[in-house]
Amino acid sequence: MSPIDGPKSARESLNVTLIGTGTIGLSFAALHLSRRSGPAVKLTVYDPRPDLEGYIDKTLPDYLRSVWPSDSASRSSEQSRAEAPDVGDLRAAGRIAVASSLADAVQGADIIQEQGPEDVAFKQDIWAKIEPLAPPHALFWSSTSGIPASVQMARMQDKTRLIVLHPFNPPHVMPLLEIVPSPATLSLPHSSIMDQTIEYWKGLGRTPIVVKEEVTGFIANRLSFALFKEAAYLAQRGVCSPQDIDKIVEQSLGPRWAVRGPFWSYHAGGGQDRGLEGFFDKIGSTIQACWDDTGELSLESDGTDKETWATCLSKEVQEIYGHLGPDDLRKRDQALAKVLDITQGSQE
Amino acid sequence: MSPIDGPKSARESLNVTLIGTGTIGLSFAALHLSRRSGPAVKLTVYDPRPDLEGYIDKTLPDYLRSVWPSDSASRSSEQSRAEAPDVGDLRAAGRIAVASSLADAVQGADIIQEQGPEDVAFKQDIWAKIEPLAPPHALFWSSTSGIPASVQMARMQDKTRLIVLHPFNPPHVMPLLEIVPSPATLSLPHSSIMDQTIEYWKGLGRTPIVVKEEVTGFIANRLSFALFKEAAYLAQRGVCSPQDIDKIVEQSLGPRWAVRGPFWSYHAGGGQDRGLEGFFDKIGSTIQACWDDTGELSLESDGTDKETWATCLSKEVQEIYGHLGPDDLRKRDQALAKVLDITQGSQE
Repeated sequence: MSPIDGPKSARESLNVTLIGTGTIGLSFAALHLSRRSGPAVKLTVYDPRPDLEGYIDKTLPDYLRSVWPSDSASRSSEQSRAEAPDVGDLRAAGRIAVASSLADAVQGADIIQEQGPEDVAFKQDIWAKIEPLAPPHALFWSSTSGIPASVQMARMQDKTRLIVLHPFNPPHVMPLLEIVPSPATLSLPHSSIMDQTIEYWKGLGRTPIVVKEEVTGFIANRLSFALFKEAAYLAQRGVCSPQDIDKIVEQSLGPRWAVRGPFWSYHAGGGQDRGLEGFFDKIGSTIQACWDDTGELSLESDGTDKETWATCLSKEVQEIYGHLGPDDLRKRDQALAKVLDITQGSQE
Repeated sequence: MSPIDGPKSARESLNVTLIGTGTIGLSFAALHLSRRSGPAVKLTVYDPRPDLEGYIDKTLPDYLRSVWPSDSASRSSEQSRAEAPDVGDLRAAGRIAVASSLADAVQGADIIQEQGPEDVAFKQDIWAKIEPLAPPHALFWSSTSGIPASVQMARMQDKTRLIVLHPFNPPHVMPLLEIVPSPATLSLPHSSIMDQTIEYWKGLGRTPIVVKEEVTGFIANRLSFALFKEAAYLAQRGVCSPQDIDKIVEQSLGPRWAVRGPFWSYHAGGGQDRGLEGFFDKIGSTIQACWDDTGELSLESDGTDKETWATCLSKEVQEIYGHLGPDDLRKRDQALAKVLDITQGSQE
């Protein structure tokens, strides 16, 4: 039976276990608790930290208040802002539980989502321990930003079961989830794991996208780092300050791509009749000239003691922006939520 | 005397001449006409096409109606939507003139803005002709996307006078203007040309950014092409469809960068205390791994008859999106204007 879309009469709750309670874990906790369709989510959190119970009781209430509502349907509408749920009430009702052991955390789970340290040994170890303890139908998701499922599952019996579900920060605001199955999962003629995963997140107003190959860094970060490399190159060369480059992106590429992605945009740029091909004909030589002139930068040490470009750039950025604290992030997230309200409407 | 900020009593109008009346020219016409502060703009348009007068009377009224209001202050507020000015009225009042020769177009101009063909010989020729015909105080701007001022001015007497003013499409919506002076202009101890240019565009709600070196493609396009190269590489490798890559960008990087640029974002990502330096420490190895794995693509022919990746990709994108027409662009531009209302407010 599918743990997610089974008939409501057949199951009253969906048991979601979060392993790892850092920033990403808290953000996902808020997201899962905001689910309104289907059976109610019963959330179990687990983290090997010794003070977990106290930490959750202390941290989660403030966190939920600061980010609620977290689902896209009511992202920025003041009228539909619901009160954040009371963590004490939820704990009393059994909708939030704090597990004292891994076995306790995963037994009875329908979904197990891991966001522990980005460390290969940790991931391989925890999945090898989880597999025999969890129900056979439970979905296994890792929120890793870089360790592929095929590596994490080295010591699991079923090599098709674990998939990567890479969020974009902050997950309670940003709709993107990169779903990255291993080749073993991809080679299945049909995977209900994939279907259930996609359906669950769509029900939370997210946009799950399947990445068909475990490429280094997956897609969003690769694209971001490609642009960032050129931005860092131009800044360290002194063509523009980091702040001016930020302004350039904020006033051009950012809004453009928030509304329509790069392929749509250049396809439109080529004109109604010829599209992307016309765009390549018109300015292909400029594109190629820019590609030929792309800056080269490396984060690897050159073995000398001299200050690296990355250190110089970090100092410059620190001087410009100072220390960015919770208020700066909150203001950013509020604007993000409003932008997403507009763009998601315009893309439907 | 500054042609732009002279005392109002001293001058009742500011004479702006546009050379080239393609899409960019029309968009700039709408922008100049929307100016509300300072002396009224008198717009003169010139283009060597034989039917210019008929073309302007036929095209400009519809164009103004479709894009008005074009200034950022009232970008998306329905209440402040003014009626587009009537082109017949403006022509009768002398606020729009159609010039029959280059001499007629530039004599008496305070500002001369060129958006003719992207062709070095054309640009060098027209500026050599304009210089002796135009008043000595007139500002010279080229809207080129790739031919530096230092190349365009080859046959001018005063090598400090012409500057590049590169817009981002569509200029009546997108606030960014890259101001790219030649080394000759940059080496002046003080350039009132730069000051006047920046002030004029700020008065129209634009964001002029000075690019301190004539790098190939300037900044925004270089950054865009860097990301696009990786996007095209991943699409032609089959990791994700072009449409899924568009969705990834629309649901992650686009909105993030619409609100805060890449340096701010990664500085925030590194945490309150350590900023960008902390970000490099935390995930520098992932960044480097992505950089090391970046795809290589070229738009130059490899000399064989086989279909290039660019042709295959163009066909795939055409199959996905079909022909994008005026309605698609209008819907995009409306969403863009709303996004900019939010982001510009949040960045102040």
